[in-house]
Amino acid sequence: MEDARRTADGALTRVEQVMRIVRERIASRALAAGARVPSIRTMSEQSGVSKSTVVEAYERLVAEGALVARRGSGFFVAGGAGGAVGERGLAGAQPQPRLDREIDPLWLTRQSLETDARALRPGCGWLPASWLPQDAVRRALRAMARDPRAQLTDYATPLGHPALRQHLSWRLAQHGIGAEPGQIALTDSGSQALDLLCRFLLEPGDTVLVDDPCYFNFQAMLRVHGAKVVGVPYTPNGPDLAAFERALVEHRPRLYVTNSAIHNPTGATLAPAVAHRLLKLAEEHRLTIIEDDIFADFETDPAPRLAAFDGLARVIAIGSFSKTMTAAARCGYIAARADWIEPIVDLKLAVAFGNGDLTADLVHRLLVDGTYRRYLEGLRTRLADAMGDTLRRLAAAGLTVWTRPQAGMLLWARLPDGLDAAQVAREALADGVVLAPGNVFSATRSAGEYLRFNASQCNRPKVYETLQRAMERAAAPSAWERVD
Amino acid sequence: MEDARRTADGALTRVEQVMRIVRERIASRALAAGARVPSIRTMSEQSGVSKSTVVEAYERLVAEGALVARRGSGFFVAGGAGGAVGERGLAGAQPQPRLDREIDPLWLTRQSLETDARALRPGCGWLPASWLPQDAVRRALRAMARDPRAQLTDYATPLGHPALRQHLSWRLAQHGIGAEPGQIALTDSGSQALDLLCRFLLEPGDTVLVDDPCYFNFQAMLRVHGAKVVGVPYTPNGPDLAAFERALVEHRPRLYVTNSAIHNPTGATLAPAVAHRLLKLAEEHRLTIIEDDIFADFETDPAPRLAAFDGLARVIAIGSFSKTMTAAARCGYIAARADWIEPIVDLKLAVAFGNGDLTADLVHRLLVDGTYRRYLEGLRTRLADAMGDTLRRLAAAGLTVWTRPQAGMLLWARLPDGLDAAQVAREALADGVVLAPGNVFSATRSAGEYLRFNASQCNRPKVYETLQRAMERAAAPSAWERVD
Repeated sequence: MEDARRTADGALTRVEQVMRIVRERIASRALAAGARVPSIRTMSEQSGVSKSTVVEAYERLVAEGALVARRGSGFFVAGGAGGAVGERGLAGAQPQPRLDREIDPLWLTRQSLETDARALRPGCGWLPASWLPQDAVRRALRAMARDPRAQLTDYATPLGHPALRQHLSWRLAQHGIGAEPGQIALTDSGSQALDLLCRFLLEPGDTVLVDDPCYFNFQAMLRVHGAKVVGVPYTPNGPDLAAFERALVEHRPRLYVTNSAIHNPTGATLAPAVAHRLLKLAEEHRLTIIEDDIFADFETDPAPRLAAFDGLARVIAIGSFSKTMTAAARCGYIAARADWIEPIVDLKLAVAFGNGDLTADLVHRLLVDGTYRRYLEGLRTRLADAMGDTLRRLAAAGLTVWTRPQAGMLLWARLPDGLDAAQVAREALADGVVLAPGNVFSATRSAGEYLRFNASQCNRPKVYETLQRAMERAAAPSAWERVD
Repeated sequence: MEDARRTADGALTRVEQVMRIVRERIASRALAAGARVPSIRTMSEQSGVSKSTVVEAYERLVAEGALVARRGSGFFVAGGAGGAVGERGLAGAQPQPRLDREIDPLWLTRQSLETDARALRPGCGWLPASWLPQDAVRRALRAMARDPRAQLTDYATPLGHPALRQHLSWRLAQHGIGAEPGQIALTDSGSQALDLLCRFLLEPGDTVLVDDPCYFNFQAMLRVHGAKVVGVPYTPNGPDLAAFERALVEHRPRLYVTNSAIHNPTGATLAPAVAHRLLKLAEEHRLTIIEDDIFADFETDPAPRLAAFDGLARVIAIGSFSKTMTAAARCGYIAARADWIEPIVDLKLAVAFGNGDLTADLVHRLLVDGTYRRYLEGLRTRLADAMGDTLRRLAAAGLTVWTRPQAGMLLWARLPDGLDAAQVAREALADGVVLAPGNVFSATRSAGEYLRFNASQCNRPKVYETLQRAMERAAAPSAWERVD
């Protein structure tokens, strides 16, 4: 399929086509530094060209320095410690196991971000722009333009916008989390919050626990930090505690990263008893926890927060409003122990010279004027309706939901037996529909029969028609199926 | 001075006062992990308490885990590989040499960012808010609020705002730098651009050349990346080429980071012949160069760009508009070889999930509507006047300017013989004036007689009165002067 598209580019010779396929796989991280490229035979079959064409393409890539040939064992992506300057990439010096593009977190990110707004993205992790409070953003922009005291040109203070931190302190208190404004540092996104904390807490080689499945970018982020990622099975009530304890004993992790209030990708909610036991284990094993509360505002009945139970002793709370307010004006936060905030802010100054004050001001105006609260009430109802509808239609298509989410937009569903989610996603993409196959979210690649859906992106019949057709096609393997 | 302030806090016992001094020095990075704390005698003299009080304070800090005692060699800051979770901080596992607060880059950053807007900041690295185009920002905010096609709620595309990248491609072409929009990736700041590139290019332990003196945050940033920083003396025409070549041979650096168009902190401009020879050396030694062009828009007659001479082969151009447009709506960029942009964008997605689209849109509106061009014309004239005035007044105060800047706001001036800039800065700070002592900018700490001034922040007589008084006081050492 993919290769058939390339062939349509008549301007390239066949050798150049194959070279381009390999270069693009390297650029998209489908092939990481040190990874073996497909064999001559496989590439020949996949791309419909002769073996001699593949040989010539590979030889030219070796001459360019993109590949290295190892006698008797094939061709490998160049790079790593011995590679040319500038080719370190995400994987660091260690060769990484090859990921199929379809289950590469970065590839899904790019598909979701690059696909044109008219495309269907039932696998995407955010609300459609039309569901977000665009008019409220316009009003806040006008208010900022009018306000003679608005700070429009200067750098933010080291911790960030004081009034927003004051307000966040109040919001966190609503979830039982006691954090003074001085314990809250603003960031340019929830992602930047996690990145700063990884820099603060981790050394390369440290082990980090994540839920299996978990938000896919946790894995990409942790890979950048050189962490060893260990997945712990997630249940509809939180992590599997027996497995969690075994992982603590066996791997001695430094850190556990989770979304506990509304879990991504499953939509599950942490049960209070599990939260309590988890924190006891964390204390016994001196584990630090980062709790990403990015979906907080989707909740109707607040679920327990680890940060509330723990009192920010070993839990660090992070969040942002990118999912529930706007992802164009991004602003995240870190709430942590007072003695950790100063060195974290030093790190922020060193690597970013602070956070953007204009977006912090915009977010603050939206939060405090009542607009956001009213918008959220409407959004929750709309999402609950969409969720009911999506659950019904997925069941009709033969999928089984893993747990019925109490709130939010995400749900986790299993395909009928024998179907591979990556294959279904590949087929759907050919019809312009972006799905999210389970193994994107699974550190152990054990969710190959699951898909994540976003109820807010599933209201068009074409989603289900395409899904149905993709499932049928995936059940009847095409000529493109890999043979090695 | 500093310690006298602490003593004013009557609520603390003397032991607690000493504990607090040490904790604050650790938090402010004046004392890094592994650093030796002042001896019992020195601390006793500095803080005006008995030696037994210091002993008790240090013992309690050991009990808390903040310090460790080593038999016969004194007390050291805890941390590094054996420290408690979360206390890694900026310095990583390597003990760092102690920096006086006054020459710690992060401390200057915090002073500049935290000081109240009414304070005088002749050492600060940016324009006063009143010099920046606030009305233009207001107009752009209103235009955005009105525009039905404005993208107000969605994530940016992976490279970022297409129209802004198109415009940046055109702007770079004005400086002779050929970069297609697809070779330009947006970031949330110039700092984030450099941070991503350090992640892309560096392994911990790699050596990086910087100018001596250089923009102080380059050092803080490179320290976060675990790089070994080597300073090469800067001349009024660019780096000292003989020293540069020796450093290439001796240290085999991976990277050289510079501002070449208008150099920070000296205000110097790179000469074409030096640029040419520098690039030849870079090629011979396979050196990659990052050229931070953040002051580009201050220039009247464009200086040569390394990126233009080199054609983006081994030079990467970065920049932002935080210094010339607004630091509240930050947006930076990276222009690099096409084959480097994809993995750099993957890194950006992994650690930040893209850049803010609303600020990119705001910056784009300001750049294209003619307002910014007209504003810059007025700004350049105003800065030239301020520069002339500042040069005259500093000369009258007995300082010697290192080179007369062709453009921009920064200048580098030497104190009369025998005066220590850190000491002068300390004295001035006591009077509420933030100076920038030379060693903040010097990797070799060899600029102890220099201060950086910002002409746009030097128009009040109090700047020169305070400077004069601080110089007098620094010439007559106080009882607080360190004895160890």
